[in-house]
Amino acid sequence: MNLQFKVIQKDSSSRGRLGEFVTSHGTVSTPVFMPVGTYGAVKTLAPEEVTALGYQIILSNTYHLYLRPGHKVVQNLGGVHKFMGWNGPVLTDSGGFQIFSLKKLMKVSEKGVWFASHLDGSHHMLTPELSVQIQQALGSDIMMSLDEMYTEESSSDYGQEATDRSTRWAKRCLEARTRDDLALFGIAQGGFHEGLRIESTQAIVDLGFDGYAIGGLSVGESKEVMAKIIECTEPHLPKDKPRYLMGVGTPDDLVRCVARGIDMFDCVMPTRNARNGSLFTSSGVVKLKNSVHRDDSNPLDSECKCYTCCNFSRAYLRHLFTSNEVLGLRLNTIHNLSFYNKRIKDIRNAISNGTLGQWATSLGDE
Amino acid sequence: MNLQFKVIQKDSSSRGRLGEFVTSHGTVSTPVFMPVGTYGAVKTLAPEEVTALGYQIILSNTYHLYLRPGHKVVQNLGGVHKFMGWNGPVLTDSGGFQIFSLKKLMKVSEKGVWFASHLDGSHHMLTPELSVQIQQALGSDIMMSLDEMYTEESSSDYGQEATDRSTRWAKRCLEARTRDDLALFGIAQGGFHEGLRIESTQAIVDLGFDGYAIGGLSVGESKEVMAKIIECTEPHLPKDKPRYLMGVGTPDDLVRCVARGIDMFDCVMPTRNARNGSLFTSSGVVKLKNSVHRDDSNPLDSECKCYTCCNFSRAYLRHLFTSNEVLGLRLNTIHNLSFYNKRIKDIRNAISNGTLGQWATSLGDE
Repeated sequence: MNLQFKVIQKDSSSRGRLGEFVTSHGTVSTPVFMPVGTYGAVKTLAPEEVTALGYQIILSNTYHLYLRPGHKVVQNLGGVHKFMGWNGPVLTDSGGFQIFSLKKLMKVSEKGVWFASHLDGSHHMLTPELSVQIQQALGSDIMMSLDEMYTEESSSDYGQEATDRSTRWAKRCLEARTRDDLALFGIAQGGFHEGLRIESTQAIVDLGFDGYAIGGLSVGESKEVMAKIIECTEPHLPKDKPRYLMGVGTPDDLVRCVARGIDMFDCVMPTRNARNGSLFTSSGVVKLKNSVHRDDSNPLDSECKCYTCCNFSRAYLRHLFTSNEVLGLRLNTIHNLSFYNKRIKDIRNAISNGTLGQWATSLGDE
Repeated sequence: MNLQFKVIQKDSSSRGRLGEFVTSHGTVSTPVFMPVGTYGAVKTLAPEEVTALGYQIILSNTYHLYLRPGHKVVQNLGGVHKFMGWNGPVLTDSGGFQIFSLKKLMKVSEKGVWFASHLDGSHHMLTPELSVQIQQALGSDIMMSLDEMYTEESSSDYGQEATDRSTRWAKRCLEARTRDDLALFGIAQGGFHEGLRIESTQAIVDLGFDGYAIGGLSVGESKEVMAKIIECTEPHLPKDKPRYLMGVGTPDDLVRCVARGIDMFDCVMPTRNARNGSLFTSSGVVKLKNSVHRDDSNPLDSECKCYTCCNFSRAYLRHLFTSNEVLGLRLNTIHNLSFYNKRIKDIRNAISNGTLGQWATSLGDE
């Protein structure tokens, strides 16, 4: 069996746990945060910088690489790792999330999901089988099964139908897999309805995957909804497999969700916010556009040891931001990803020390 | 006296020479190419990358830093070196070139040049005195005197007037200088008219500067015009001061112009072309947008040892370029600046070996 996940230590104060899993591109310690490299690059950063920041695994998007340059191009160039010069593990999503975000330019059927490309309007049909084929061609270490995103609170007929379809698609993904060296994760859906969530989770777990994801959440929902969904799902997930909360979240979300039993995260927030000049610091969020930083010779975060904070002032970073200098996007990205990695380290330490539960409680679910 | 320029070796086959000058931020070997850092950053690169590429000195633009963030802001933050985290020497232009490029939004008088900011339309008057004040506040190692750009071929009344005014402005710059630790260069103008050029050069040299620049040329003129201007100017420049050809040029221009006695260059070409996906290689220019590169697993230039060529394929660079990924701008910039630095090294070697003259002759002036 691939992935060889094992729990190393459990937190005495929460459901948090330290673990690790093994891929053919290296071992990953959990809890883990995966930076997003949509088009085969963590935006603004070279692979060696991502490694230097302490990251062990990145996420790349099937939808984007399928459309450009095309999975067969990537395959002919030796796979996604060689293509982008990243030697560590790669997780790819199924492509579904981006397609469901196209709204009017997509249509779901039992076969799969039809969509029009956001690049050139060309028509495509993504089926569970094609999603696995693409991900196998990319050669990602962890593949995700195709699902239908359902984000309503009701257990309407459509909610039931979408949830059941996601289960059938998950089964087809398992059947389509021909490469045993690549892990495949199932995704529990069910919208914001507890009954549907539990039903979906049980069905997906019964199918038997290398790991399990909770889909359909993002940083957009209330913390109460996020808490509710995780708490109703988690007891139904096997303890000996990694649990991945897709698309989440803020630095404090990481604390709350690890304390509820999550092992893996990805989110565009640190990298996207960096490019928008919104920076996480130990004393709160800094908005570079604010003129208060114009003459400030201090670093972004005096407690941070990242390249940006060791070498540049808030005034310079603000100047780069207001001048649209590409270097600024990169220095900001380095800082935000450094902040997230430190957060993950602090969470791991809190698990070791049995203090994660108190930390999460102190944050609340506001 | 500042700058302490000395000629170390003369080429036996051309007017080329090896030399060096000393600033309070380090010694610079000539011939030298200075990457352009318009807004206090060599676009896309961190200072340590510029150093790693072999560059000893960069150019920064007075006009841009005056408008944003303002020279007093930079001064209060410790000067341009500390502001941008660059510990090597910095040369600043006078601000004139950008203002004269504004065309209808500027007006010349004896006092100086009035202009409307390209950022917010605000009105300003740049005088020779203010240009020196700004550059002294920035703390650049080499300041340039303010001149009026004249780029016609005739010795019209206006040509004579502009050339004479540039001389008077150069004198006012010398008189306005209060910091002896910063070098100040004079600039010879005179359009494309040999008589005016010689007149301007002699007048500027009589004033006595730490170095001399040839202004008014760019990569836009024909090679014949460039050759003519340099050849009529060079004999009138003192041999014991550095000669700087502003805004030039292509890799082959560097060979031709060093062979005609030039020591210093700056140009946006390597960095701007990089961002436009146009890359210099040992087998000619590569345009990344061309679909022929889509599946090409080869490096940009198999003879190049830069980070980009050692780690990424043409296919990946094309993918980053067509996907508007910021990382691509940077990898391209690293390559083009690496190519320029190798060109400068090859020129230095050719001077040592007495072969620069043959090299320049083989290129011709086409």
